[in-house]
Amino acid sequence: MRANEEAHYIGVDLGGTKILAGVFNSTLKLKATAKHKTKAKSGCKAVMDRMAATIEEAIELSQVDRCTVVGVAIGAPGTVDMDKGVVKDATNLGWGSVPLASEMKRRLGLPVCVDNDCNLATLGVYHVELRAKPQHMVGIFVGTGIGGGIIINGQLHRGRNFSAGEFGHMVLNEDLLDKDNPFVGSFESLAGRRALERTLRAAHKAGVKTSLGKILGDKKNGIGSHHIEEALMKGDKLAIKTVREAARIISIAVGNVISILAPEQVVLGGGVVGALKKHLMPIILERAGDRVLPSNMKRVRITTSKLADVAGITGAAWLARERAQS
Amino acid sequence: MRANEEAHYIGVDLGGTKILAGVFNSTLKLKATAKHKTKAKSGCKAVMDRMAATIEEAIELSQVDRCTVVGVAIGAPGTVDMDKGVVKDATNLGWGSVPLASEMKRRLGLPVCVDNDCNLATLGVYHVELRAKPQHMVGIFVGTGIGGGIIINGQLHRGRNFSAGEFGHMVLNEDLLDKDNPFVGSFESLAGRRALERTLRAAHKAGVKTSLGKILGDKKNGIGSHHIEEALMKGDKLAIKTVREAARIISIAVGNVISILAPEQVVLGGGVVGALKKHLMPIILERAGDRVLPSNMKRVRITTSKLADVAGITGAAWLARERAQS
Repeated sequence: MRANEEAHYIGVDLGGTKILAGVFNSTLKLKATAKHKTKAKSGCKAVMDRMAATIEEAIELSQVDRCTVVGVAIGAPGTVDMDKGVVKDATNLGWGSVPLASEMKRRLGLPVCVDNDCNLATLGVYHVELRAKPQHMVGIFVGTGIGGGIIINGQLHRGRNFSAGEFGHMVLNEDLLDKDNPFVGSFESLAGRRALERTLRAAHKAGVKTSLGKILGDKKNGIGSHHIEEALMKGDKLAIKTVREAARIISIAVGNVISILAPEQVVLGGGVVGALKKHLMPIILERAGDRVLPSNMKRVRITTSKLADVAGITGAAWLARERAQS
Repeated sequence: MRANEEAHYIGVDLGGTKILAGVFNSTLKLKATAKHKTKAKSGCKAVMDRMAATIEEAIELSQVDRCTVVGVAIGAPGTVDMDKGVVKDATNLGWGSVPLASEMKRRLGLPVCVDNDCNLATLGVYHVELRAKPQHMVGIFVGTGIGGGIIINGQLHRGRNFSAGEFGHMVLNEDLLDKDNPFVGSFESLAGRRALERTLRAAHKAGVKTSLGKILGDKKNGIGSHHIEEALMKGDKLAIKTVREAARIISIAVGNVISILAPEQVVLGGGVVGALKKHLMPIILERAGDRVLPSNMKRVRITTSKLADVAGITGAAWLARERAQS
């Protein structure tokens, strides 16, 4: 890269179903993206090859000179040892322990750093989306699973072992806990996309009428948040009931997080919130304070992220820029 | 105070039932304590007069020269605006908003600062009890109510409005939530001393045999944790069942806190834990990890505070010393 050229950064969101890569300029404006299926079952080597190809495709689409790309950061759905660049416990990928940073560095010939996907989405929201920076902020991302990130004093709190912010594992209904099924009763098991799908399928099987019948009958493909949104627009009673219940659960989780962390702002994101926010937010805003001390609720802001699907890659690009500049 | 004299600090724990004041030397060794009933119903002015008398009594008992006392810190059971020295939402005291720092300064002629009682207990555990300082620590205090404090990067995280660490308000059973009774289903409502008392009274009323019958029949006085401990020693089945259930609930709360904050250490304290730890801890240690990702549980320590009843005044004295030295 020549001295008068603008640097570019790559942000990657490695999900259980898709890989999204984005090219950002030096002010973190998104220039182009490329997206491919993860095909996690093909094994971690094949996934990493596909990720490298997705990144090269995004660079090509952005028309930026590859020499101006100075760093890559990847968000992975698991616990990430940032020092070693190793992904652990990525159950959605079926990965035990994968040295993602070094493997991708070898494939790309670029500096690569890795962090938890929800941590990066939180960094994206905090550093790029929000204009007024709260001192303490929490990001909660409700998608296929549920995760989050915590900003304390303007810094991401990664915690011991880089494992903080696992809001999805917070137990909200201890009555449901089951020895054989350890995560039943958790926030994720009650309000993640998979939970909504499970509820809808069970009701459909029990004979409840729903406009989602056709999609629910197709066992091969999952139900997306956009399918639920379509059903809501048609006034489908089952979808309405299911989404209202999810909103109630999210409001309890948000309340818990406010009681514990007292942030100035809670930002909700992820696929489920992105697609259904019009239906979810009025209930969440009305009920989040129900179980919280009045002094804790005072002046706390509960908002949704406008970055939606690109929160993760935006935060990743921010991190890549931080690393390149430090 | 003369230049060659040792400075002393007063730590006060203002509880719903008792006021405890302690005199500490410059290395935070406890020299003497005095304790009196709060008698919250007598009104906040009378409580503050009684607190001043309790402090003077502690100074007299310690035999330190009053001129060497350079600062006072008070832990109050509510949300505390530390900048203004005002206590808010102290429901156990029936206080709305009381300018405790200025009122006590006027009574004592000494610098006074005020913080939340559980924040101070956390500071006491962290700065005075623990030798190896974890970077991130959580204190959870299970007494009449349940509260806590959060240490992030060696600093107490007070949060917006000084209201972080309200673990007692974390909802653990959303099924129990009740519009008229907003805090049913919370950690405190399931495992605080009042919850244990409620469970025991209900069972006794329903005819369950228990060695606590006599105490449960006395409606004027509450059941202390020591009464439950005595019943456990006698092998009382109702007491055993009640305490096991409390331990299960505490283990879930500890698990949630680990999933969210990823501390290196969780320290449990408060009257219930102090009296019943022999019975609670084996269950808590066994079960806390049941609902937590393995990478989050790895190497986290769950311990009890040895400071017991004096954690709060010890942390208060630490804060008073910090303020005097800054």
